[in-house]
Amino acid sequence: MIKTIDLNSDLGESFGQWRMGNDDAILEIVSSANVACGFHAGDPVGILQTLKSAKENNVVIGAHVSYPDLVGFGRRKMDIASHELTADVIYQIGALQGLATAAGTTLKYVKPHGALYNTIANDEYQAVAVIEGILAIDPTLALVGLAGSNILKWAEERGLKTIAEAFADRAYTSQGELVSRREAGAVLHDADLVAKRMLQLVTEGGVESIDGKFTPIQADSICVHGDSPGAVDMARQIKSVLQQAGITIRSFIHEKESH
Amino acid sequence: MIKTIDLNSDLGESFGQWRMGNDDAILEIVSSANVACGFHAGDPVGILQTLKSAKENNVVIGAHVSYPDLVGFGRRKMDIASHELTADVIYQIGALQGLATAAGTTLKYVKPHGALYNTIANDEYQAVAVIEGILAIDPTLALVGLAGSNILKWAEERGLKTIAEAFADRAYTSQGELVSRREAGAVLHDADLVAKRMLQLVTEGGVESIDGKFTPIQADSICVHGDSPGAVDMARQIKSVLQQAGITIRSFIHEKESH
Amino acid sequence: MIKTIDLNSDLGESFGQWRMGNDDAILEIVSSANVACGFHAGDPVGILQTLKSAKENNVVIGAHVSYPDLVGFGRRKMDIASHELTADVIYQIGALQGLATAAGTTLKYVKPHGALYNTIANDEYQAVAVIEGILAIDPTLALVGLAGSNILKWAEERGLKTIAEAFADRAYTSQGELVSRREAGAVLHDADLVAKRMLQLVTEGGVESIDGKFTPIQADSICVHGDSPGAVDMARQIKSVLQQAGITIRSFIHEKESH
Amino acid sequence: MIKTIDLNSDLGESFGQWRMGNDDAILEIVSSANVACGFHAGDPVGILQTLKSAKENNVVIGAHVSYPDLVGFGRRKMDIASHELTADVIYQIGALQGLATAAGTTLKYVKPHGALYNTIANDEYQAVAVIEGILAIDPTLALVGLAGSNILKWAEERGLKTIAEAFADRAYTSQGELVSRREAGAVLHDADLVAKRMLQLVTEGGVESIDGKFTPIQADSICVHGDSPGAVDMARQIKSVLQQAGITIRSFIHEKESH
Repeated sequence: MIKTIDLNSDLGESFGQWRMGNDDAILEIVSSANVACGFHAGDPVGILQTLKSAKENNVVIGAHVSYPDLVGFGRRKMDIASHELTADVIYQIGALQGLATAAGTTLKYVKPHGALYNTIANDEYQAVAVIEGILAIDPTLALVGLAGSNILKWAEERGLKTIAEAFADRAYTSQGELVSRREAGAVLHDADLVAKRMLQLVTEGGVESIDGKFTPIQADSICVHGDSPGAVDMARQIKSVLQQAGITIRSFIHEKESH
Repeated sequence: MIKTIDLNSDLGESFGQWRMGNDDAILEIVSSANVACGFHAGDPVGILQTLKSAKENNVVIGAHVSYPDLVGFGRRKMDIASHELTADVIYQIGALQGLATAAGTTLKYVKPHGALYNTIANDEYQAVAVIEGILAIDPTLALVGLAGSNILKWAEERGLKTIAEAFADRAYTSQGELVSRREAGAVLHDADLVAKRMLQLVTEGGVESIDGKFTPIQADSICVHGDSPGAVDMARQIKSVLQQAGITIRSFIHEKESH
Repeated sequence: MIKTIDLNSDLGESFGQWRMGNDDAILEIVSSANVACGFHAGDPVGILQTLKSAKENNVVIGAHVSYPDLVGFGRRKMDIASHELTADVIYQIGALQGLATAAGTTLKYVKPHGALYNTIANDEYQAVAVIEGILAIDPTLALVGLAGSNILKWAEERGLKTIAEAFADRAYTSQGELVSRREAGAVLHDADLVAKRMLQLVTEGGVESIDGKFTPIQADSICVHGDSPGAVDMARQIKSVLQQAGITIRSFIHEKESH
Repeated sequence: MIKTIDLNSDLGESFGQWRMGNDDAILEIVSSANVACGFHAGDPVGILQTLKSAKENNVVIGAHVSYPDLVGFGRRKMDIASHELTADVIYQIGALQGLATAAGTTLKYVKPHGALYNTIANDEYQAVAVIEGILAIDPTLALVGLAGSNILKWAEERGLKTIAEAFADRAYTSQGELVSRREAGAVLHDADLVAKRMLQLVTEGGVESIDGKFTPIQADSICVHGDSPGAVDMARQIKSVLQQAGITIRSFIHEKESH
């Protein structure tokens, strides 16, 4: 039986005068912070602040790398060439490593963001470009990818540690895939229900699919959100329910390193 | 008598489809490459390519950090707050370190670019912000600054190694300051004359000022250009004249490290 | 005695996924909307939405032109060359005109934003560059500038209509200048007091300065804010107090056109 | 028999300190200039300069609208939402109209650039978004699209004038489609051959395909390049051969307006 699980969240997504999310609140909840690198969100001042807060909260830090698309928040797929994507990934990881060093901490993993995350789940061309970027700058960094998707296999074949991720507030098909956001019921809003599902995920290794069947999902980490007061409350509720069931919230990195 | 001098040049300044400079030609001449970091010029693909060429040519690499002003090429002074400038410097150095790692090399120094270079020569507020950025990410990095300017003193007081820089193709006042580009005779175009002046700089510790007096200039490095065929020829000529006089062209980093 | 005054506010300042201000609430209050043009804030989708709302509310539209500095929100002075600034102003006005046409409305004035606003109040070099940009694209556009500053004179000398602006929530010196934000008491937070001051401004032609003297301020328009619930409440309070005193809130454009 | 043809070229593609193309040379050759709008290339100063030169040369001006992707030069397909693309198109056309006004000229047509051009040739979702953008700002603007592609039909159905375009230096399949750049022989380099093919296009209404068959191509305009000395020479050669055969080089706009 699994005794620990990681909670991760997307942070450092303010930009200049524009605020997004409540990083301080969410850093008290999660064990891992996916920190924006400036390509979809995040300016150097704000990223540095988030990294300092993450360190104070003993939260493990990952680079939330993206397509270069600030106005689209990295949510629009781009047909970017392999060598461009590889270099973009290296640049972003390097920038975040630099700021992490200044904040007195170090980077442990990489989680692609938004459209890039979705694309590389099953697009080998872009997936390999991202993997090669990570290998080129630091092959000890883990890669976070969608539980059950091909990116995890492709990364492991090339020597990267991987972290399979589930989404707390998303419905799954009976094949273990995310229900598309365009479909009704794709996003769950009931914090109690979501917390109960995540407990099931950790203790039973799966959740109930949108059509009512138990669906196995092998996840090392659960993604929670902090971009609204309701989201922070839901994240807190998930953590509370898990902890009450005796489950330790802990970065997957420590898990992997202890093996 | 000085037996070695460093030649440095600004590289990696292409951006996307736009070419600038002849990095491959200049990398055969200089001992140090100031590589753009994406804020005034340079995209990840192009920077990575330049770093690989620099490594192949055994040229020492520095981060050419700038104000965030791509359309203005970093040549417009910005009244940027101290904490913003510090974070911008860290971000850029980090990004370049990451790409340098991917290219199998490492970063050795930082040279501020354009308007930032000129501003911090004598503006303590911005100068200290830059220095603190370097200290925060890697206090072993040297800082290149204008020979005779205050930035060198401020950086040394805070523990940074410094490199005093002279400009090959620029006229100097009898006080040892650069003649403003707005004045006639500020920029020298005669490669023979420039090479002779640089030989004088290295062997006698100064050059003749615009009003005909010998002006002492204490320089560790000479900046040459590669952004036109004429500039590359001038750089080659300078190197040739110096070498014929028995002077070794060598990165200041090796000099400093050997002390 | 003056019977009408204009209320203006900065709008369209969201960017991509980042929200800023409550444009719909403030558009029910003001008579003029300074709409961001994409250089300090505003993306095409968001600008278009704000323009459509402004039209529905019969609010007059101006172009809120800025230095090109998204991450700095246009709040950092830039030493930009005259021809660059002129072209930047034309580009922004043109873009906003295009979006205004698509929204079924037209642009009536230009208000420089942030650091550019402050700079051109007294810097003739940049002021003339802005004025020439407006003249080049549409000399019937009015220019909004700080009441009592030189920009108004320079613009009128070159044939532009001008609108003198006062700031509702700012303290003034006895010379009629804004108290610097760095000094205590520069920004007023008491909505009742601010509303009373603006009534005095309209009816008596001045306000009490920070050192207790009546200071004449000749203003055609009052700037109010909408970037927080408190700011919207203050704007509503100002409008209410003015209207109860029999003053009509009306765009300066109608005033100027009726002369 | 057709007596006139339009020659168009992509211009205004410099950006800040980076030069691209020889706008002055190509403006002496072509009858229509597709001018960059700042999203894939072009800064306000450079665009304004190109527009002034176009006016001096009596060259008709079009807006070369693009995805927002400066570093990728608009050559990477983006999965951009319809309302975003529509607003982006309006913004760019407006900005160019503004600069054209300042240059004493007016905009006559729109030609999507790069990946957007290719995408909308057959992707109705993005095609309609572009068409709606043009209709919203100025329904008298013509749309340039790939000869034989669906975009022309979709635009005409919605009331836009269209201009069918052929590419001088590209091979065609026997179905009248462009041979993909990834295939051998896709790009033609022999100026004599290219000029002869374009003469055939104008006089016979088609060219020989890559597999040796005559392929009908109904084109109103021929795209030539100016981004290298060889390209300018090829453009000059095409014009010369056409003129010697008695064909008038003239903007399609005049043609369409005279009907």
